[in-house]
Amino acid sequence: MTGSIPSGPRGEFEWIDRLVELLGPAANVPGGGVAIGDDVAIVAGPGGETWAWTVDTLVEGVHFRFDWLEPEDVGHRALAASLSDLAAACAEPVGALVTVAGPRETAEAFLEDIYRGIAALAGEAGCPIVGGDLARAAGPLHLGVTALGRCPSGAPPGRGGAKPGDGVWVTGRLGAPAAALALLAAAGDPRSLAAARAHPAVRRLARPTPRLAEVAWLAARSALHAMIDVSDGVSSDAAHVARRSGARIVLDVDRIPVHPAAEDAAARLGSVARDWALHGGEEFELLLAVPAGAIEPYVEAFEARFGIPLTRIGFVEAGRGLVRRDGRRETPLPPGGWDHFRVARPEPSP
Amino acid sequence: MTGSIPSGPRGEFEWIDRLVELLGPAANVPGGGVAIGDDVAIVAGPGGETWAWTVDTLVEGVHFRFDWLEPEDVGHRALAASLSDLAAACAEPVGALVTVAGPRETAEAFLEDIYRGIAALAGEAGCPIVGGDLARAAGPLHLGVTALGRCPSGAPPGRGGAKPGDGVWVTGRLGAPAAALALLAAAGDPRSLAAARAHPAVRRLARPTPRLAEVAWLAARSALHAMIDVSDGVSSDAAHVARRSGARIVLDVDRIPVHPAAEDAAARLGSVARDWALHGGEEFELLLAVPAGAIEPYVEAFEARFGIPLTRIGFVEAGRGLVRRDGRRETPLPPGGWDHFRVARPEPSP
Repeated sequence: MTGSIPSGPRGEFEWIDRLVELLGPAANVPGGGVAIGDDVAIVAGPGGETWAWTVDTLVEGVHFRFDWLEPEDVGHRALAASLSDLAAACAEPVGALVTVAGPRETAEAFLEDIYRGIAALAGEAGCPIVGGDLARAAGPLHLGVTALGRCPSGAPPGRGGAKPGDGVWVTGRLGAPAAALALLAAAGDPRSLAAARAHPAVRRLARPTPRLAEVAWLAARSALHAMIDVSDGVSSDAAHVARRSGARIVLDVDRIPVHPAAEDAAARLGSVARDWALHGGEEFELLLAVPAGAIEPYVEAFEARFGIPLTRIGFVEAGRGLVRRDGRRETPLPPGGWDHFRVARPEPSP
Repeated sequence: MTGSIPSGPRGEFEWIDRLVELLGPAANVPGGGVAIGDDVAIVAGPGGETWAWTVDTLVEGVHFRFDWLEPEDVGHRALAASLSDLAAACAEPVGALVTVAGPRETAEAFLEDIYRGIAALAGEAGCPIVGGDLARAAGPLHLGVTALGRCPSGAPPGRGGAKPGDGVWVTGRLGAPAAALALLAAAGDPRSLAAARAHPAVRRLARPTPRLAEVAWLAARSALHAMIDVSDGVSSDAAHVARRSGARIVLDVDRIPVHPAAEDAAARLGSVARDWALHGGEEFELLLAVPAGAIEPYVEAFEARFGIPLTRIGFVEAGRGLVRRDGRRETPLPPGGWDHFRVARPEPSP
């Protein structure tokens, strides 16, 4: 179960814990593991197969804005978010269902293009769209995707398997999605908004690549102790892994690979690109904990094959929590509190 | 794929057809049937099994109102809607995921009780809740359920298999949900609203029973050529079956069993209960097309076992469309245009 109703007296994890408690025995899968608390549910299929199942909802004004992204991008991102959850579960897509709820005007203006974006990524990722649901509703458009995947290696590592001594790795270069949102938010008039929309950071935000092929390649070569996709930011997602694994993660912040588009945006805005790379969400890159030495031999081949870096950014040790190491100094690293599109908040912060 | 964005230049089916067209090859399941257009997708599951997969979204103000139903009822109905889709696919529940998107205030006021309602039905129906997603959003609460089920007899009949000569049957007594909505809408002050909420028709609306056990029992005894759950009303849902089967369905309207709570409400409101039974949605009873004579021998045992009637309300013949027969007269029967809770419409009708 994933979530963000972060404001107010009860935070996200308190909500999830409370709801799981209310579900009680209804939150158990007969004959299978229960992944409530993670981004995917694990379903034990007959014949010993393991399937991963996820659902994500993107809400207009919270997770996307039509003045910031093309509707094709919105569709792409909705499917990509669920496929990224499957990737983090080492799963191969079986199919997806799409739900749309919103006003007629929004549907007429954007729905066909949203589906074009979904269809294009579905084709690339080999994930057929096998159904869905349309509902009329006042208010913002809600776009939901539920996806099923097969886990060829059985139950996936999840977030809870990191062990002291593991290396902590990340795919790709980070920071561009947060940079994109900063550029878009800073654009004060239509002309500067158009310029912002053309920036490479915004193109990176608009079209994340779920790392399905990458994870299959890695899983064939190394044990993967823990895995999560970076949707809330490295600082938040690494903290999830540390918390669920009952271990301490030390991040060498200087090693986090920063996307060049984020560097460019930071220069324009007078910001620090590394902060975006550390705390920014919407990346859909993978954060992995793997045994020391296990994937070092394959880094070069990975980078040649997929055209993105694979970088060790820290390690796991005994203890609790998440710390950053700068040189010889270690300091606690609070989660960045990633808040999606940081657009007009639907509720006042207390 | 199910849907209702019915207003405006493009109707529900035009929308679905257009979106399926846009999905193109992405709307194909390798190795499995494609159920896009029906309430469930059929997925070729592990070990050669057939799985049914559905998703439904209930939106505050469109599919429920917190001043009309208890939050536990809202949770019950959200899960019941998806389980009813599984029942119509002869599927046994494997599990469900729940998504909630809405404002913090709504979550704090109602979410725990919504989950209590979900958990209670999940326990009764043997459908574990294995995860979900929470999102903060302005506007009405959106409550989504996606459910998976196993089809022990392989690919389900769907809507398209009705054959000339088949009998058309329905489970249960109809009309109470529409009667309930009429009672609630007619209540002008808090006191009469409280009285309406206590009416048996509203209790029936609040707690529909997905006919999972009933359909398993019937499937073990008879071929089932076509099946649909009555969510849009008998007139609409029978029309779906006729359309998808390329056949004509003749309904003997006088045979439709009317719920006593609907009769009572009709007497109070000066309405015609049979119209509610014919056109009212939210029933979650099953409409079946079965070979002539196939289930007649089991009707008595069915009614004794499940405590609800099983009634032949018409038959299938060669041709197209849906007609009602009153005595010897046959007249075309247009779909009732069921519009969920008929509450303040989020969009003006054109």
